[in-house]
Amino acid sequence: MSNPTVPNLATAVSPPLLELERRILDSMPAIERWFRLQWQDHTPPFYGSVDLRNAAFKLAPVDMNLFPGGFNNLSEEMLPCAVQAAQSAIEHLCPEARNLLLIPERHTRNVHYLTNVARLVRILRSTGLEVRIGSLSAEVTQPTTISLPGGDSLTVEPLVRTNGRVGVAGFDPCAVLLNNDLSAGIPDILRDLDDQVLVPPLHAGWAVRRKSHHFAAYDEVADDFGRLLSIDPWLINPYFARCNQVDFHAREGEECLAESVDLVLTRVRAKYKEHGVGAAPFVIVKADAGTYGMGIMTVRDPSEVRDLNRKQRNKMAVVKEGLAVRDVIIQEGVPTVEKVEDAVAEPVVYMVDRYVVGGFYRVNKERGIDENLNAPGMHFVPLAEAQPFAGSCNLPDCKAPPGGSALNRFYSYGVVARLALLAASIELERTAHLLPPRATAAEPALAG
Amino acid sequence: MSNPTVPNLATAVSPPLLELERRILDSMPAIERWFRLQWQDHTPPFYGSVDLRNAAFKLAPVDMNLFPGGFNNLSEEMLPCAVQAAQSAIEHLCPEARNLLLIPERHTRNVHYLTNVARLVRILRSTGLEVRIGSLSAEVTQPTTISLPGGDSLTVEPLVRTNGRVGVAGFDPCAVLLNNDLSAGIPDILRDLDDQVLVPPLHAGWAVRRKSHHFAAYDEVADDFGRLLSIDPWLINPYFARCNQVDFHAREGEECLAESVDLVLTRVRAKYKEHGVGAAPFVIVKADAGTYGMGIMTVRDPSEVRDLNRKQRNKMAVVKEGLAVRDVIIQEGVPTVEKVEDAVAEPVVYMVDRYVVGGFYRVNKERGIDENLNAPGMHFVPLAEAQPFAGSCNLPDCKAPPGGSALNRFYSYGVVARLALLAASIELERTAHLLPPRATAAEPALAG
Repeated sequence: MSNPTVPNLATAVSPPLLELERRILDSMPAIERWFRLQWQDHTPPFYGSVDLRNAAFKLAPVDMNLFPGGFNNLSEEMLPCAVQAAQSAIEHLCPEARNLLLIPERHTRNVHYLTNVARLVRILRSTGLEVRIGSLSAEVTQPTTISLPGGDSLTVEPLVRTNGRVGVAGFDPCAVLLNNDLSAGIPDILRDLDDQVLVPPLHAGWAVRRKSHHFAAYDEVADDFGRLLSIDPWLINPYFARCNQVDFHAREGEECLAESVDLVLTRVRAKYKEHGVGAAPFVIVKADAGTYGMGIMTVRDPSEVRDLNRKQRNKMAVVKEGLAVRDVIIQEGVPTVEKVEDAVAEPVVYMVDRYVVGGFYRVNKERGIDENLNAPGMHFVPLAEAQPFAGSCNLPDCKAPPGGSALNRFYSYGVVARLALLAASIELERTAHLLPPRATAAEPALAG
Repeated sequence: MSNPTVPNLATAVSPPLLELERRILDSMPAIERWFRLQWQDHTPPFYGSVDLRNAAFKLAPVDMNLFPGGFNNLSEEMLPCAVQAAQSAIEHLCPEARNLLLIPERHTRNVHYLTNVARLVRILRSTGLEVRIGSLSAEVTQPTTISLPGGDSLTVEPLVRTNGRVGVAGFDPCAVLLNNDLSAGIPDILRDLDDQVLVPPLHAGWAVRRKSHHFAAYDEVADDFGRLLSIDPWLINPYFARCNQVDFHAREGEECLAESVDLVLTRVRAKYKEHGVGAAPFVIVKADAGTYGMGIMTVRDPSEVRDLNRKQRNKMAVVKEGLAVRDVIIQEGVPTVEKVEDAVAEPVVYMVDRYVVGGFYRVNKERGIDENLNAPGMHFVPLAEAQPFAGSCNLPDCKAPPGGSALNRFYSYGVVARLALLAASIELERTAHLLPPRATAAEPALAG
């Protein structure tokens, strides 16, 4: 290593993932070629992040975010790769682009999120685009400059729509990049744009998207990949089931929930037996369209979802933007054996275009190895800080013993994250028709 | 900066390049879009490196290498970007590729060069290719493993040709990557390959290539770019002239040389006057097909090329592989004002596909600011070591004052290097017809 001075947090404990990691490393040429061919047939999303759980006996994605909000948690040294990947994305999307409009989340007061937006703007500007920020928030009625820690600032402007195109005053972008997951629904101002590229597409927002659609596509990707590596696809794939028309307040759908929990636990139990895993299975019950770590519970027995008290029901009933939860996914729980600074941790991998551009550990001192870590108490540690030079995920060290190299561990993380990215591409191809029509014939979008 | 512990060589002196640097920074969006559109029309070479000279009043490429041999001089932290760029190159070249054959220089005993080959192999393998190394050297008659410092090793194998395809025993590559500049001529074994991609193409080798063709294409690129930025293209372009049929031993062509030196000096003198440059102009006389810093001299007056002594004539007459010099380029000398550790330095920028993947300073304590630094006494310092995080060349800091930021300085370097890369693409398009036919009707290539 040319730079031994990067801090190595010796407390980042990476437990063995020997068998799967070795198989992935040995198959690297086949894997990379397979991805190359997959990307000939499928278009990667503009960007995405994947939450992984490494249980030592399996390594699986548990969530795939198409509007990643943690670019500020990537290490500085990964930025050049992110810029390069964004250049590639822009080339595919809109090679003539001069101007790009970024639409962030409405909550404009969260400094962490705003720092993410600032980082994203920096990456996009470094590709040579003029970037301006248009807000869906009704509170933003004029250009508003927000100061950030470290001397940065962001100017957020009201969105305007003119001649079927969206922009901000005096700025007509070729491409519009959403960093808003549309939990609050699909705004008319973004529909039926005239010759403007909007990414991710509207049906990628949580108003339409369902985790169960994603994991149905992931099932197929994992099966294909399992065949490629001659491994049980369960080693990279959590079981899941889903229930529609759940109403936690009215206690409707509890029977479906309990049956699904039982079904998933039974299947997991069989797999634990087959693979000699000694742990007790659990499932994660969460909103099928949820995000931000809201509406999530760990369940170890079907009876638990039949006996929810009022507080638990309230917690599960609504997610971000006050959206009522009707669709629920029951996902095999994958314990995490990663620790950073003695706290439970899970890796989050960031991708732009088809490239892994870095990642970090989500760390939560207040949570157990079988719980959702996206909760109060969490903090983030860049992969590159946990292990020097390993943040790239694309530089495996084939000579190192399995389990002995963070480069190899993180290469495996990058592979499984890219499987989820590929599943997202397929998911988005299949769900385009689900975009609901406009609610009314009213045309607020025509107002400039 | 998230990592203040990277060593900052305070002795890396970057003098002002205020005016040009400011213009380049201000025009970044236009520049990046212009490159994006250029790469729609032209295919970048697989890789390349550009020697730059920063004279403070101008910043210009003085050499463009299509077979870069210093990947080992890039900092470790730039490798992820190099892998990503190589993935992009392979996708464009041969997306179905499993196997790639690398053909290095024949001189298999130079440890520095072999370390470059090992670094290149590592980058290519990280894209998922099976890489093997085939040698053009007659001395390599069986697979030969060479140990390298640091525990690495390389296995070099004899080339074989079977059914019109080149490979090594038991290995049939989809793509063949030359890291051999073909100074010794074009080997028949590489001609007329059947459904194999060979990059860079044979006419990119010094058996065919001429610096003057490159700089003729660069003239056009620099003119276009000058219009884009409303700057005098001379600020990024050295004047040149050329002489054919020079024979230094027989003292033929001296008149052409002297006239060309006079012509270039006169033109440079006028530009110095126009731009208020106080220095004394000089030219570099060098082999039009030369490399490795051989056959190069600094000339300040036409009389100098008329009065060459035997030693000087011998030095200019032959270059690498003993090739006789017949074609000579007379290039405006660009003094370098860069210093690293008190020695004269020039930046060398490395690119893979259309992306800058890093660079280093070529440093030579024994040379002056108006001399060729590619000579005994030189050593290399990665840009990232000279200035932390600045090695990427794609992350300008638009808020820093001009001249005050290594990120901005190196962004300018990356821009000018990419201009030379673009010129190389155009050069290669135009010179494909120059590939000479086989010397004889003999068909050694048919032998397996």
